[in-house]
Amino acid sequence: MPVVKLTLAYDGTRYAGWQVQPNGPSIQAEVERALSELHKAPRRVTAAGRTDAGVHARAQVCSFPEGRPLPEKAYVMGMNALLPPDIAISAAALLPEGFDARRSARGKRYRYRIENRPTRFPLGRDYAWQLFRPLDAAAMGAAAALLTGRNDFAAFQASDCEARHAVRDLGRLEVVTEGEAVVVVAEATAFVKHMVRNLVGTLVEVGLGKRPPSWVAEVLASRDRKRAGPTAPPQGLTLEEVFYPPPGEER
Amino acid sequence: MPVVKLTLAYDGTRYAGWQVQPNGPSIQAEVERALSELHKAPRRVTAAGRTDAGVHARAQVCSFPEGRPLPEKAYVMGMNALLPPDIAISAAALLPEGFDARRSARGKRYRYRIENRPTRFPLGRDYAWQLFRPLDAAAMGAAAALLTGRNDFAAFQASDCEARHAVRDLGRLEVVTEGEAVVVVAEATAFVKHMVRNLVGTLVEVGLGKRPPSWVAEVLASRDRKRAGPTAPPQGLTLEEVFYPPPGEER
Repeated sequence: MPVVKLTLAYDGTRYAGWQVQPNGPSIQAEVERALSELHKAPRRVTAAGRTDAGVHARAQVCSFPEGRPLPEKAYVMGMNALLPPDIAISAAALLPEGFDARRSARGKRYRYRIENRPTRFPLGRDYAWQLFRPLDAAAMGAAAALLTGRNDFAAFQASDCEARHAVRDLGRLEVVTEGEAVVVVAEATAFVKHMVRNLVGTLVEVGLGKRPPSWVAEVLASRDRKRAGPTAPPQGLTLEEVFYPPPGEER
Repeated sequence: MPVVKLTLAYDGTRYAGWQVQPNGPSIQAEVERALSELHKAPRRVTAAGRTDAGVHARAQVCSFPEGRPLPEKAYVMGMNALLPPDIAISAAALLPEGFDARRSARGKRYRYRIENRPTRFPLGRDYAWQLFRPLDAAAMGAAAALLTGRNDFAAFQASDCEARHAVRDLGRLEVVTEGEAVVVVAEATAFVKHMVRNLVGTLVEVGLGKRPPSWVAEVLASRDRKRAGPTAPPQGLTLEEVFYPPPGEER
């Protein structure tokens, strides 16, 4: 059975997260509702990764096996007519059996935006963490460099994370400044729950001068969540891209 | 009597505009309410320029004469505690008598953001005009160059504009691309009503290939609003900065 791959963007502000929730709206429920309407029969999708309440996506990917697929364009046009303004499909592709948005993914890139001004800033406030004390982005960058590579990220794993272990390959963790903002870019083959937000919360301790950059190496080595910084709030986080093998090698 | 100068940012999405309105919330009303609370007596302010419903500001400026001014910091802290999340004061300054946010202004810079993707894009949708057909930014830039300088902008003036004439000095009108966005930057000593939005709506006609760049020179020369393009929607527009003479020469 062929598989439909959908690429979608969403503003997560008013959602309880990607995953269908008993209480509160979810992006998955909206996508499945629109898809079921389009196919005139119930459809369920799998996403590359669940995003938390308030987290955004520029290019999340979800997929579902479909015996009677519509033309690719019909998914883009049809879904965008049926979805609310804060969710939109940017691309659809029909792939051979075996593709799965979650299992086939080879990596993901996230961005975390911190608006760092001395006073609160109303523009884009749903897309950034606002910190008023000045951050030392260079110190944060030095700390970030100590966290990249294949490591056990247990110190940055949510206590209710279902993953059996926290060994992950963090290929990239960079800190860049964009005007008055400090942006953290994280790329890995996979992430444990809250990993980016916990990494950011820890880097911010360094950025505020509470800890030296070398401290994050101790935190990493401890594998102890209590040693790391707090979880950064969700609204600064955006899932930027999901990586897949080249066409033909997807499975 | 000294004058208090406040610099403020706002997300104009849920407002009927800067100016106090009989129907609907205004930024001015919120600022005056907070200021009156702070001073425990009614206060009225003058802004550098009125912004329309849905238009944003990164650094709008307003002022009021004040016989018993508070310390500068008290305005920033106090106002930010009293204002709603979509309005914030970024700076306050006490200036000598004679300063007026509107009359003392020497110029303003606006930015207009067009999100130009083949499908709608949910992130930042309150801060951009979404156009799905591809824009030729280079053609728009060539057209923009024909509009700069001291000209009669009657063709770009709202029919209900109260200005007696439309001769303005448009020092800068540039078109730049930022990722998937086309951004128009406009700087002038002063603007007539809807001028930036009408300039953008006209440049977009060129960007869509409906008209050659040279057409905008004909529109300008005609001084006829009916010859220009439509008014671009408000949410793409942000007042970026207001220019004043150096301290000491302000009046």
